[in-house]
Amino acid sequence: MRILVVGATGTIGVAVTQALEARHELLRASHSRSALKVDLADRDSIKRLYAKVGRVDAVVSVAGQAAFRPLLALSDADFALGLTNKLMGQVNLVRFGIEVLADGGSFTLTSGILSRQPMPGGAAISMVNAGLEGFVRAAALDLPRGIRINAVAPGWVRETLVAMKMDPSGGVPASQLARTYVKCVEGTMTGEILDAVGVAG
Amino acid sequence: MRILVVGATGTIGVAVTQALEARHELLRASHSRSALKVDLADRDSIKRLYAKVGRVDAVVSVAGQAAFRPLLALSDADFALGLTNKLMGQVNLVRFGIEVLADGGSFTLTSGILSRQPMPGGAAISMVNAGLEGFVRAAALDLPRGIRINAVAPGWVRETLVAMKMDPSGGVPASQLARTYVKCVEGTMTGEILDAVGVAG
Repeated sequence: MRILVVGATGTIGVAVTQALEARHELLRASHSRSALKVDLADRDSIKRLYAKVGRVDAVVSVAGQAAFRPLLALSDADFALGLTNKLMGQVNLVRFGIEVLADGGSFTLTSGILSRQPMPGGAAISMVNAGLEGFVRAAALDLPRGIRINAVAPGWVRETLVAMKMDPSGGVPASQLARTYVKCVEGTMTGEILDAVGVAG
Repeated sequence: MRILVVGATGTIGVAVTQALEARHELLRASHSRSALKVDLADRDSIKRLYAKVGRVDAVVSVAGQAAFRPLLALSDADFALGLTNKLMGQVNLVRFGIEVLADGGSFTLTSGILSRQPMPGGAAISMVNAGLEGFVRAAALDLPRGIRINAVAPGWVRETLVAMKMDPSGGVPASQLARTYVKCVEGTMTGEILDAVGVAG
């Protein structure tokens, strides 16, 4: 398959590209560090990306920013960041990607378990992740030509916890998360939210 | 209790005010037909509303617009409507309402079952409703002074189906939905999404 990976240079993105590259042709995109550049917050940037990429069999998004901050400290700009970047950025990857996706192709997006397992400081992120999951469940019913859509909802990533000097024992290694993305790309499910929060094994 | 009802003139809003007015002092607000006016899409309008209202014990929102349209027909403006009005409008009712809410007061917002029971044409609404529910679950963990927050997720409203000349048998009468809102206001739960989709009885 010819697969566009958006967010290819992030912690999860690198693991996803490593898991996919042996069997597929990858096109790597990210905000600044890949051959293909894209700003998720800018709809025209997404349209330009697709114009360069041409026909693909799958789009995998492991990108999107949102603010983690207590409710009383969240600003208008914090809410706008998550809505514009992680939520509508990924929604627009779908809207504008439909026409470049092959029949039976797939979108795999990234939400996060705060959608359903809230924690203090997560009001804006929970909103964005849950919104994305709602979109995925419903968009699956409207997509044409057998196109599938799913989201992976990662928990804490082990490598991120290590980088933040936190206890990594509750984190999932990025390489394990990547297997969930591969399942979405190579599988047949649609409209599903795949939690990826288990213990490594 | 002194209760602000936003969206007081809508189908559900009228039923909610009827269910609350015998035991509580109500302040009715809506976009155009109440003594108190508010435009949910305008943060400054929400701030002006609260400045007029003063201290309240509960805020009930039965307001918010979003577009119902197939994914391929949803425009940038359609997505923006739901995000700005039904989602951030209600989020801003919370953000700016905290300071006028009494200790132990409550917010009761309105999502809708498309958040988790998708249907064709519902991609933008499912996104908005699910996002609101994610916000409610997480915001509950950050609210100060014992302030509670919940959302009611109505299914089809019987009166709406009748008005649309559709089969009303699957709809919930607004008066029954209203009882779920009363539970949120007078109860003790927080961070909950209360589905209101049962058969009348």
